[in-house]
Amino acid sequence: MDNFTYKNPTEILFGKGMIPELKGRIPASLKVLFLYGGGSIKKNGVYDQVRDALKGRKVIEFSGVEPNPSYETCLKAVEIVRKEKVGFILAVGGGSVIDAAKFIAAAVLFKGKDPWVILEEGGSNVKMALPIGTILTLPATGSESNGNAVISRGSTHEKLSFYSSKVYPVFSVLDPKTTYSLPAKYVRNGIVDAFVHVMEQYMTYPAKVPLQDRLAESLLQTLIEIAPAAMKRPVQYEARATFMWSATLALNYLISCGAPQDWSAHMIGHELTAFYGLDHAETLAIVLPGVWRHQFKAKQKKLEQYAGRVWGLRTAEEAIVKTEEFFHSLKMPTRLGHYKISAEEAAAKIGARFRERKVFLGEHGTIGAVAIAEILRSRA
Amino acid sequence: MDNFTYKNPTEILFGKGMIPELKGRIPASLKVLFLYGGGSIKKNGVYDQVRDALKGRKVIEFSGVEPNPSYETCLKAVEIVRKEKVGFILAVGGGSVIDAAKFIAAAVLFKGKDPWVILEEGGSNVKMALPIGTILTLPATGSESNGNAVISRGSTHEKLSFYSSKVYPVFSVLDPKTTYSLPAKYVRNGIVDAFVHVMEQYMTYPAKVPLQDRLAESLLQTLIEIAPAAMKRPVQYEARATFMWSATLALNYLISCGAPQDWSAHMIGHELTAFYGLDHAETLAIVLPGVWRHQFKAKQKKLEQYAGRVWGLRTAEEAIVKTEEFFHSLKMPTRLGHYKISAEEAAAKIGARFRERKVFLGEHGTIGAVAIAEILRSRA
Repeated sequence: MDNFTYKNPTEILFGKGMIPELKGRIPASLKVLFLYGGGSIKKNGVYDQVRDALKGRKVIEFSGVEPNPSYETCLKAVEIVRKEKVGFILAVGGGSVIDAAKFIAAAVLFKGKDPWVILEEGGSNVKMALPIGTILTLPATGSESNGNAVISRGSTHEKLSFYSSKVYPVFSVLDPKTTYSLPAKYVRNGIVDAFVHVMEQYMTYPAKVPLQDRLAESLLQTLIEIAPAAMKRPVQYEARATFMWSATLALNYLISCGAPQDWSAHMIGHELTAFYGLDHAETLAIVLPGVWRHQFKAKQKKLEQYAGRVWGLRTAEEAIVKTEEFFHSLKMPTRLGHYKISAEEAAAKIGARFRERKVFLGEHGTIGAVAIAEILRSRA
Repeated sequence: MDNFTYKNPTEILFGKGMIPELKGRIPASLKVLFLYGGGSIKKNGVYDQVRDALKGRKVIEFSGVEPNPSYETCLKAVEIVRKEKVGFILAVGGGSVIDAAKFIAAAVLFKGKDPWVILEEGGSNVKMALPIGTILTLPATGSESNGNAVISRGSTHEKLSFYSSKVYPVFSVLDPKTTYSLPAKYVRNGIVDAFVHVMEQYMTYPAKVPLQDRLAESLLQTLIEIAPAAMKRPVQYEARATFMWSATLALNYLISCGAPQDWSAHMIGHELTAFYGLDHAETLAIVLPGVWRHQFKAKQKKLEQYAGRVWGLRTAEEAIVKTEEFFHSLKMPTRLGHYKISAEEAAAKIGARFRERKVFLGEHGTIGAVAIAEILRSRA
């Protein structure tokens, strides 16, 4: 086991009817930025619950945060926060809104000229941030209980992430009932996203971290087990509750404490979103099996462990096939062709970008531009 | 899944050579109480590492905290903390020293006359506490990453616990190498203690919490798997590291979020320690199988799940037998007779105490004085 430090100060408020709990948790003296995306929270009643809980406070609304939240939108919010002297950001929505809140919270107090540098330097330059609270309505990214955020820049087709201990939400409300109105596609995306988050912290090599392995396998087994019930209508509270809690624990980084990680599928997937606009989860389902096949020898032992413990199968090959079948069972495609994207073109474009950035991926840092192009070419 | 709130602000500093990390984490302006137990930390080098890390600071030492830390000793420390205007308590040792630190930290700022009331009211009256840091040298209680403490009062044979969100350690250093000099008996106790902590949060009834179940089973499987290596000499770093991390996660209450719990074995066990001076873990190994047999019908389904998933067995009865065998494999007795304690006498004394207190135990609150006496009588 490698040395590690771990701290997760976010307070989780989990369950039905928990939104009013935010009342006592935002200092009364602070002006609140109520940040959200499109109009879905107005249709499903969440907007009204939040306004009720914020009664008597100074609140400024900012809506229109996009999926894959854009730098440009965030900058507009930063301007308003500064002008209005906002002291607390309440993000209501999915990972996109929460990620935007984190970037805004850091950018407002950033001393440099252009806050894009926060992303270019991965957050190491964030010295302080406004406090954030979240009300999660889309289980998927785990952003409600970690210090990570991903922001996109339309003008340059860039999608970059940062981490800072300063942007953990102070509290996050997880009410499974807020997920009831989600379209099936979002539930599917959330399950795949959480599943691959676990995989990126697990599918490396046998690293003498038996507890971390078993915790990861617990999450994988649970997600597989509850996926059909979580997708079903009429909605089942228990399945949605387990899905929601699983997605949070999938990416609060507890399961990878002291363990090696390989975030290749995410890094390559981000580029597919940046160039072609695919949903984040859609990119993961395409890339993950490609990384596994390309790195078959390096990951074979761990794939076999996964095969046996999670699926009751024997070989690494069987585990890969079964994983793709699992994605297909959720109506999640695993090939670029499904989206009419040329694998050759994607390989060329994205390979070139990694060559330029001189970035190497994988748990041993050996997956370079050539390998990345090969992986994408294999996902035609 | 039941509604829950969860927050665990303790920063974990895990791994070999991590003790110096405490330097930046105790404000330089604060006088430090360096709290420890007997002389073992002077023999194994931990004392010197801590003194090195505290160089240049105002430090007052307080040693002599007992296993099952006593109210009387804590009060002496409270007096010194007040007189010397100590601002930070650094607990170096096992759960006893850490529990004492929590009680001292709360008692120093307690407004009432007699801080014993903190324990009588379970901590609900704790409004503030001094900050605490810990250096854990004995994996077992999980106290390094929760808000619980157990304190004993010699004069009245009482052993009571309290919980407060104010007494979570600010940081805890977990260096597996600090465990190398532990006598075998302490390692055995720690494994059993952690194992039973998981059980008390798991062995109830099927409650539609599949993720929590699997996380608990992961901890049980891991503890069973690494127990022989953790007991072995020469010491193996990896086994001790996994043991140490497992004991922390066994009782930071993450695995029981939203799930029913049954702390019967602990509550009855505390009385065995109070009356007969048995080690905490020794009492758990005696009482747990007794609770399971007495509550066989209520727990049968969950016992079967445990049998299948953790041991690859079929029946509840097999699971109970196998668990006792596991304790025996660690040279941990499971009967009162081993300690020459009369089961009849223990049943009478402890039954009377629960009758007096009108306390009912178990996940349904149905285990009263008569049942408790029956359980103890069955463990002759």
